[in-house]
Amino acid sequence: MFWDRPPTCRTPDPTAVEEARVRTRELLMPLRAMGRCHEVVERLAAIQGTATPHIDRPGLLLAAGDHGVVAEGVTAYPSTVTRVMVEVFLRGGGTCNALVRAVGGRMAVVNAGVAEPVRSPPEAPEVVLFVDRPVRSGTRNFLHEPALTPDEADRAVELGFEVGRSFIRRYGLDVLAVGEMGIGNTTAASVLTAWLTGAPVESVVGRGADLPADRLERKRAVVRRALERWADRVGNVRDALAYWGGLEICAMVGAFLACGTEGVAGLVDGFISTVAAACAVQLMPGLRAFLIASHESAEPGHGALLRWLGWEPLLRWDMRLGEGTGALMAVPLLRLAVGLHRDVWTFAQVGLSRGT
Amino acid sequence: MFWDRPPTCRTPDPTAVEEARVRTRELLMPLRAMGRCHEVVERLAAIQGTATPHIDRPGLLLAAGDHGVVAEGVTAYPSTVTRVMVEVFLRGGGTCNALVRAVGGRMAVVNAGVAEPVRSPPEAPEVVLFVDRPVRSGTRNFLHEPALTPDEADRAVELGFEVGRSFIRRYGLDVLAVGEMGIGNTTAASVLTAWLTGAPVESVVGRGADLPADRLERKRAVVRRALERWADRVGNVRDALAYWGGLEICAMVGAFLACGTEGVAGLVDGFISTVAAACAVQLMPGLRAFLIASHESAEPGHGALLRWLGWEPLLRWDMRLGEGTGALMAVPLLRLAVGLHRDVWTFAQVGLSRGT
Repeated sequence: MFWDRPPTCRTPDPTAVEEARVRTRELLMPLRAMGRCHEVVERLAAIQGTATPHIDRPGLLLAAGDHGVVAEGVTAYPSTVTRVMVEVFLRGGGTCNALVRAVGGRMAVVNAGVAEPVRSPPEAPEVVLFVDRPVRSGTRNFLHEPALTPDEADRAVELGFEVGRSFIRRYGLDVLAVGEMGIGNTTAASVLTAWLTGAPVESVVGRGADLPADRLERKRAVVRRALERWADRVGNVRDALAYWGGLEICAMVGAFLACGTEGVAGLVDGFISTVAAACAVQLMPGLRAFLIASHESAEPGHGALLRWLGWEPLLRWDMRLGEGTGALMAVPLLRLAVGLHRDVWTFAQVGLSRGT
Repeated sequence: MFWDRPPTCRTPDPTAVEEARVRTRELLMPLRAMGRCHEVVERLAAIQGTATPHIDRPGLLLAAGDHGVVAEGVTAYPSTVTRVMVEVFLRGGGTCNALVRAVGGRMAVVNAGVAEPVRSPPEAPEVVLFVDRPVRSGTRNFLHEPALTPDEADRAVELGFEVGRSFIRRYGLDVLAVGEMGIGNTTAASVLTAWLTGAPVESVVGRGADLPADRLERKRAVVRRALERWADRVGNVRDALAYWGGLEICAMVGAFLACGTEGVAGLVDGFISTVAAACAVQLMPGLRAFLIASHESAEPGHGALLRWLGWEPLLRWDMRLGEGTGALMAVPLLRLAVGLHRDVWTFAQVGLSRGT
């Protein structure tokens, strides 16, 4: 079993951070005048163990799964759309595909539990890996029974971990964005967020993928009932992932854990991805140093969760698509930050010294 | 004289915006789920007159000039640093150079009034244009006399306009970032911001390029005295630019005006660039539709000015370098936004229809 031998997180490199800070001071500009660029570079220095980190080989791991709670009318789209969209990703037509291509990255698609069989082979050149191993055909409806057995949850985490690790290794990735597709998953993520943060249900439930406003109250009631139904039995994050979690959420937890074991920066996307990241750092506290929050989405639970985690996102563009798209938008920002840190001349090179 | 025949602003294309909005609705994602990406695309559609705008040829116009008010001890660095940095840019060592290269852009450097003669020829391959035509050797100290004569101010505007226009035309630029170098220019920009917005001097004066904290009060006093000294004589933006403005600020005004006449998106950088943009839209109201605010800097006057303009910046990374660097950081974001708008499949393509 996966948790019998828990994966070990690497340790960030304090020497590299210090060397990166020294270099930042030497750069021919007012002290730390590029603001968050320097912060990003020093985070990456710690992760990569070098004063001049790089963002040359970005990857997206996209996990997909369905949710039994969709039966409660909490979504605008039916579960079948999860399967359709996964097929779109395999064929190259998704927003994630467009962004992966634009940043010169690669993409792995993991079917962790889509309800319908996925029928397309991977055709898009950016999709270098397709792992079609659904742990089960969607989760159970957590209003009536636990979404997953403990074993199913663990196996989905393990799946994401294994795929994440081999994706990172095989392609020498230096940053892994972790995204998802799963109709109903903002409902599951809302329950997990309320449980993790203690925030009131009203403040963490949003309209997800275009739920009509007049059904928002119903979604809130479902989240509230789900929380009440199992709260007594949920003692830790692994329980929470089983009782309420999605298979794609578990797989994303595993993918983030792989960032920790491989020592690679994990780029956290939107609400669902951040829920998975939050669970992963509970399970592997050292992982925090390896994760970077890319954006704050329009989904209200996301802000609550980011504040609870103490993470300041790089972008606030009111994005709410998922698929890892917000994380991919941040990739060029990381790349520009590490590029200028490496390329800009120093005070010494021009015979000047710092005014302050 | 430049203002005898004022330049004419083009008109944004409402049909292209409408077509871009229709396409956004058709994209295979929840409605406008990429948030500000859609807003950016529709702004660019209006500017470029097409439903599928492009960001293929970005340019940076960097204007440089010195400020007589530096004699009052309002800066950490002496005026000579302006000349040194311009020479660094011509040789490729600046942060702006690193970013221009990283986004695959081109760069024009305009010496509008550096105090010392610039001695380097342009060596960096990204610097395709160097216009060494200082209107005068820095401005006068505006505590004692007007910084510029009306004629000098107009000539600096005209210089920026001419260079901007020929840079755009010669290289077919589809976006022009406008940045600067000029020791002392946050002092001039603070006076202009206080005059434009009516905001209290305390709230618009910051430490610029690392002014020691114990000299901030002196800088505030200088800004206050400069404002009081000439406020009675300043009736309009052209007066303000002459009494307080910098030669590089005037040249940037001209560069933004060229965005309006050429119908090209102008990417506004930090505090100084935004002051120039604010002056330019006063002189050419139609220009507003062509300008995009890239970031909000750490300099306090910048936020005041952006709010006065009603502009929501794309990034808040506490950058405060100038040189057009914040604007260049935003270029890949624009590029990803137009790319996904063009490349993502539609609902019709997969036989689905929108849930809402």
